[in-house]
Amino acid sequence: MDQINFWIGIVATIAFAVTGVLAIADRGVDLFGVLVLGVITAIGGGTVRDIILDVPAFWSIAQIYIWVALGACIVTFVAESFFTQPQIYRWMLYIDGLGAALFGIQGADKAWNLGFGLPVAPVILGVVTAIGGGLLRDILAGRKTLLMSHELYAIPVTLGCCVYVLILNFFPALTLEGSVLCMLAIFGLRAAAIYWDLRVPKLFITKTR
Amino acid sequence: MDQINFWIGIVATIAFAVTGVLAIADRGVDLFGVLVLGVITAIGGGTVRDIILDVPAFWSIAQIYIWVALGACIVTFVAESFFTQPQIYRWMLYIDGLGAALFGIQGADKAWNLGFGLPVAPVILGVVTAIGGGLLRDILAGRKTLLMSHELYAIPVTLGCCVYVLILNFFPALTLEGSVLCMLAIFGLRAAAIYWDLRVPKLFITKTR
Amino acid sequence: MDQINFWIGIVATIAFAVTGVLAIADRGVDLFGVLVLGVITAIGGGTVRDIILDVPAFWSIAQIYIWVALGACIVTFVAESFFTQPQIYRWMLYIDGLGAALFGIQGADKAWNLGFGLPVAPVILGVVTAIGGGLLRDILAGRKTLLMSHELYAIPVTLGCCVYVLILNFFPALTLEGSVLCMLAIFGLRAAAIYWDLRVPKLFITKTR
Repeated sequence: MDQINFWIGIVATIAFAVTGVLAIADRGVDLFGVLVLGVITAIGGGTVRDIILDVPAFWSIAQIYIWVALGACIVTFVAESFFTQPQIYRWMLYIDGLGAALFGIQGADKAWNLGFGLPVAPVILGVVTAIGGGLLRDILAGRKTLLMSHELYAIPVTLGCCVYVLILNFFPALTLEGSVLCMLAIFGLRAAAIYWDLRVPKLFITKTR
Repeated sequence: MDQINFWIGIVATIAFAVTGVLAIADRGVDLFGVLVLGVITAIGGGTVRDIILDVPAFWSIAQIYIWVALGACIVTFVAESFFTQPQIYRWMLYIDGLGAALFGIQGADKAWNLGFGLPVAPVILGVVTAIGGGLLRDILAGRKTLLMSHELYAIPVTLGCCVYVLILNFFPALTLEGSVLCMLAIFGLRAAAIYWDLRVPKLFITKTR
Repeated sequence: MDQINFWIGIVATIAFAVTGVLAIADRGVDLFGVLVLGVITAIGGGTVRDIILDVPAFWSIAQIYIWVALGACIVTFVAESFFTQPQIYRWMLYIDGLGAALFGIQGADKAWNLGFGLPVAPVILGVVTAIGGGLLRDILAGRKTLLMSHELYAIPVTLGCCVYVLILNFFPALTLEGSVLCMLAIFGLRAAAIYWDLRVPKLFITKTR
């Protein structure tokens, strides 16, 4: 199980680093900026989660995450023209959605196991793990953050983490199955949003003046 | 006393969530963004304070603050046209000023009671509690932050926290009276600034070039 | 040795507060904003480092850093026209580069001595100490951050911290000489970048589209 969790984290880290770099590459960022912003996208959310949980940052214990993120950033920088091909980029979006699903459930799980602010805090920290790194990147890069777009990105994560917390609470025997199910549900919703280009309906958006 | 402190915190949380949502509603934010940005406005300052103080985030212990903030955000989202009426909005500004006064003194008080970096840190952490959430919201929403406007908002809080720390230091017997007095003073200054539309005088502003 | 470390920190704090204020002064900031943004520039990086290290913020123990930063901000505000003279401003840039060198090595050293995430985390936290405050200032002031410019600022710090960590690892007997050497190397590279107006070569910058 720990083994699986580890590989899940590695895949999500690579996905986030690659899409993190691609998101800012069109602004003319130097290699140092690419490394910093890519690594922050990949490990920033988990770092904020760990600070709030008051546990050591996960990458201070398992430094492999940093090396993997750095490697993914360099590869993306060098092979930028490969990754920005529409077909490849679309694949990256799906992998990024998978990363968000994995990080979200892992984050909620970590908070739950520490008994931190049950039951509401695990949902919040799951969402923070999944979108926190991207928010930090956008703030540092001067981009509009996810919260101001109307993408269906954080909402599937939030719903999935809510369901997962309900499972942890009412069906603790089904934790493993529940986590897989919720990851798949988040990824499914996100993939549908990418595939059909779904967005938040107008009804749920405040009126601009 | 704890009872009073609790209700003070609840009122301030509602005020911050409502004004937090109203501040960004004109940008066309979806319901998820409204919830995140409203809750961050309400509990972000206290969270940063608790991280610096290295104590558990207050909402991980008293989750009622999150529920109240979420509820206030949803009500504001649904009844946006009510809250944006000039007369009602003005009332909200006053309540927000009251919230800043309450949060500022509560934040300074918490740092003081923990003996954290006396005497200067309690003032800093009081100000962080009062304005930190709004700063985080503005950064995430891509708005100009309070620090770049010339509003009389943080200055009354800072002055009030300074006076409160002086009282705690030199007249420890008068803590209760002092806290009420300083809250009223902050609120009074802020209310005057709203009522007469006072701003920082030109003399205290750097020259644009 | 502690004595030297202390004075190094004071000089760097003053340098960061002064250049921190000058960087935003042309935007018409009021005295409160000047104080907050100048102090954040000076102590923000070290604060983020200490939060990640989970040790008390350095300024909660040695409050002198706050007083020095506040004093430097006020002097800069009052004597703005002095500091913005091209010749003086250039001097300030060099002192700021010295500050970055000092803060970077001090930050790496602190993480190393705490045994935090060796060997990679000390490099990251050295860089965070040196540039974190400036990043926070730019985010709060709505400026483009260092990461999106192509200045040779963070790169010398990163290289210097890498070399310092290598020295700590392989030649622990040479810690003192190594720290001085690395500070000088960082400062030398940064000074060269200021003097010849060096920037990151195009080859290492992503293509804007």
